[in-house]
Amino acid sequence: MSKAENAYQELTGLAREAGILQSVAELLEWDQEVCMPPGGNAHRAEQMALMAGAVHEKNTAPRIGELLAVCEQSDFTSGSAQAVNIREIGRRYRKNTSLPAKLVKEIARVTANAHPVWKEARGKKDFSIFCPHLERIVALKREQAEAVGYQEGSPYDALLDDYEPGESTDRLVELFGDLAPKLTNLLRKIMDAPRKADSSLVQRHFPADSQRTLGIEAARAIGFDFDSGRLDPVVHPFCLTVGPGDVRLTTRYNENFFNEAFFGIMHETGHGLYEQGLPPADFGLPTGTSISLGIHESQSRMWENCVGRSGRFWEFFFPRLAEVFPEATIGVDTGNWLRAINQVKPSFIRVEADEVTYNLHIILRFELERALIEGELEVADLPSAWNEKFSRMLGMEVPDDSMGVLQDVHWSAGLFGYFPTYCLGNLYAAQLFATARQQIDSLEEGFARGDFLPLLNWLRENIHSRGMSLPARELVREVTGHELSSSYLLSYLESKFNALYGI
Amino acid sequence: MSKAENAYQELTGLAREAGILQSVAELLEWDQEVCMPPGGNAHRAEQMALMAGAVHEKNTAPRIGELLAVCEQSDFTSGSAQAVNIREIGRRYRKNTSLPAKLVKEIARVTANAHPVWKEARGKKDFSIFCPHLERIVALKREQAEAVGYQEGSPYDALLDDYEPGESTDRLVELFGDLAPKLTNLLRKIMDAPRKADSSLVQRHFPADSQRTLGIEAARAIGFDFDSGRLDPVVHPFCLTVGPGDVRLTTRYNENFFNEAFFGIMHETGHGLYEQGLPPADFGLPTGTSISLGIHESQSRMWENCVGRSGRFWEFFFPRLAEVFPEATIGVDTGNWLRAINQVKPSFIRVEADEVTYNLHIILRFELERALIEGELEVADLPSAWNEKFSRMLGMEVPDDSMGVLQDVHWSAGLFGYFPTYCLGNLYAAQLFATARQQIDSLEEGFARGDFLPLLNWLRENIHSRGMSLPARELVREVTGHELSSSYLLSYLESKFNALYGI
Repeated sequence: MSKAENAYQELTGLAREAGILQSVAELLEWDQEVCMPPGGNAHRAEQMALMAGAVHEKNTAPRIGELLAVCEQSDFTSGSAQAVNIREIGRRYRKNTSLPAKLVKEIARVTANAHPVWKEARGKKDFSIFCPHLERIVALKREQAEAVGYQEGSPYDALLDDYEPGESTDRLVELFGDLAPKLTNLLRKIMDAPRKADSSLVQRHFPADSQRTLGIEAARAIGFDFDSGRLDPVVHPFCLTVGPGDVRLTTRYNENFFNEAFFGIMHETGHGLYEQGLPPADFGLPTGTSISLGIHESQSRMWENCVGRSGRFWEFFFPRLAEVFPEATIGVDTGNWLRAINQVKPSFIRVEADEVTYNLHIILRFELERALIEGELEVADLPSAWNEKFSRMLGMEVPDDSMGVLQDVHWSAGLFGYFPTYCLGNLYAAQLFATARQQIDSLEEGFARGDFLPLLNWLRENIHSRGMSLPARELVREVTGHELSSSYLLSYLESKFNALYGI
Repeated sequence: MSKAENAYQELTGLAREAGILQSVAELLEWDQEVCMPPGGNAHRAEQMALMAGAVHEKNTAPRIGELLAVCEQSDFTSGSAQAVNIREIGRRYRKNTSLPAKLVKEIARVTANAHPVWKEARGKKDFSIFCPHLERIVALKREQAEAVGYQEGSPYDALLDDYEPGESTDRLVELFGDLAPKLTNLLRKIMDAPRKADSSLVQRHFPADSQRTLGIEAARAIGFDFDSGRLDPVVHPFCLTVGPGDVRLTTRYNENFFNEAFFGIMHETGHGLYEQGLPPADFGLPTGTSISLGIHESQSRMWENCVGRSGRFWEFFFPRLAEVFPEATIGVDTGNWLRAINQVKPSFIRVEADEVTYNLHIILRFELERALIEGELEVADLPSAWNEKFSRMLGMEVPDDSMGVLQDVHWSAGLFGYFPTYCLGNLYAAQLFATARQQIDSLEEGFARGDFLPLLNWLRENIHSRGMSLPARELVREVTGHELSSSYLLSYLESKFNALYGI
């Protein structure tokens, strides 16, 4: 082997080890949410801190810098797996080593202290309690952005890059700025439409055990492999990968609201299918890792919404629903059921929002957090800015801060640049799904027969199997033949809701 | 702080970190047995290997040797927590560093390969398939004994020390040599006794869910804290500590045999109570660690047998049994129930053995493995030696190797010196329980009222809270006022079974 090949072998060996250590840390987290008795809390924090330290040490070892220097000077073919891994390991290494340890610890300390204060403030509906903590967090995140650095654009770019590598603030401003008024417009049309959804149908009694049975059936039907995964109940649902062949879905059962667990499971299954489709032999390497939160979310939203909330899906699945819930489906047919699960209605809480308004909730947060990081908005002015925007975009007056600016945990945890990936997920999902419909014969007719494999295989080939070979926007351009555009999401929503609401 | 105090702080800091890392490895194991989907197997092996390497590195860091040298020259008060931790960390460090890495890896490799061969041999009832593997394992274990070293006695001492620190082969030969013929004698008397147990009573139908309910009630009644622990079903039950405040019991439900889960749960709860009673602030340090497998087993056997299979316990618990299993307890009263759960009868399989014959199964294994390690017995002659001994001690002819020499996994895994701790556990249990009866007023009358706290508190004070402050035999001498003796177990068994069987 050449010197460069030797260096590459050693480099990827170290990356794999860091990946395995990180996967152990993931199990600590899963277990904490799913299994751990309350008495285990204090020790679990020590276990997590020790593992986080070990992962950080592996990821910032000076040896990686030496090996990267050798690899980056060599002539691995552009676009090859080697080139991808060198590029991405290098990007991560420079990012990890650019942050002063003191700043990392300070952010961890300040956000850990801020979390209970945020909870208290939310409980008391009083932003002023949380305000000084958020001020400190914003200051630290701005410091972080300066330490990491960003090209001419916005310091927000540096934060965004943690979740959506290669994305830029300017492009998001343009994309979301175009999308928001059109969504508000669509929302008005739906609210004024002649046909109405009867949301009481999804608010009947759905026993949790049967919800679990049905959710597992649906997840299995769309391709989730339960020999390489499982599903458990938790308070705040997530999907987590312990390793290749071990992908763990979670959900929350609400016996008086069908949508929560069922579409939650479809959503997490979408994430899980992506994880189950990554090349197992490349675990721990960029070529075996998902691209970005936005692309990850595109997979969950596609299966949850484009598939799970579609008429074709329920042609296939409604008979099972009626079998499993004979009482709750009295007087229900695919028509009124479809409108019920797809009800569009402005609401204050993001996590309860429908497919149309969800994006408005996200764009609102993006605009505000960008302004905070760019120094255009003071933290003290955040609640009034929130309420003013909310009224304009969703047409409702926020009654108090717990229904507004205090509802999400993200900012208290220092997550700035995270929110936009939710909306990017919807945009990528719509654009990819439109392409899949073009490229796969009778795609949706297949759904009606319970045949989801063509879509899964298409995603496996075009997205899952490719790891981080391309940045999100480039991959989507290559796969769909077009730049990312809001037109796909808009026409998907318009055609779906025009039909449902008789507009 | 003095130089020695500084060194002690750093030394215990390193020990704690190794303990936390090890506790993460424990969770990997628990999850593998309880939660992991089958697809996770290959990655789990990588996670475990990486964590084992990290723990080994922490435990053998040269810095520990330097710190020990400073601490051991200083004048920490004999018997103080500092002295205990320095003594035990030093013992472990010298042991860990005395083993050549090559030998450790070779043992790991050979036993990993031997495991499936042992399974195959057991399935085919043919020792000859397994024989060459076991020969290699015995040779490696003898090599290990030589590398670790032992004082004048037997190389078996060096292996025993891994599980029962400070125990000696010679003393076990004496102890077990005295015990075995007396047990065989007692067994004959019981077999000839006028009264018989009706074992069909425990072989009725006991639904698993109800077994779980009852098992949890019993575990809670004797003091297990389920806010700091849990109970799950597995194939091969165990008790495992993820950390202070997080002790995990497991069991196996057999719907056609009551004893398996119920007394299995009582047994694992006994282990769990010991773990829950260790000083949490000393986690990872010898002062926060159990003494030996023998002492650990004394706790499990005491709660399983001295308490759980006693008449007083069932005075308290029989009404609940009858409530939970109304059909299975038709025609059952505390008298015939007590005889049924306590049936004594020679059998071929150790894990199914009763309180009397169990010890004979162990002594047989001890005598054979000692002879193997001391070179007195060839591996090829093992089956005939087994069958001959079995016939003499238990009065039955072994029909094939799967019912004899191939039944246990231990030797295939390189566990030599482990078996005697099971019998030591019974001996320690009987001696400690006899002392507790003397020192606590109306101890067993309390059981009849569901009051187990006096016994638990006595164990907390005399055993659990003391960590590794004294070696097993010394602790028991101090607590009971006598050297370890087989007379306590013998008189416990005689008095119990004479009464039950009307001898």
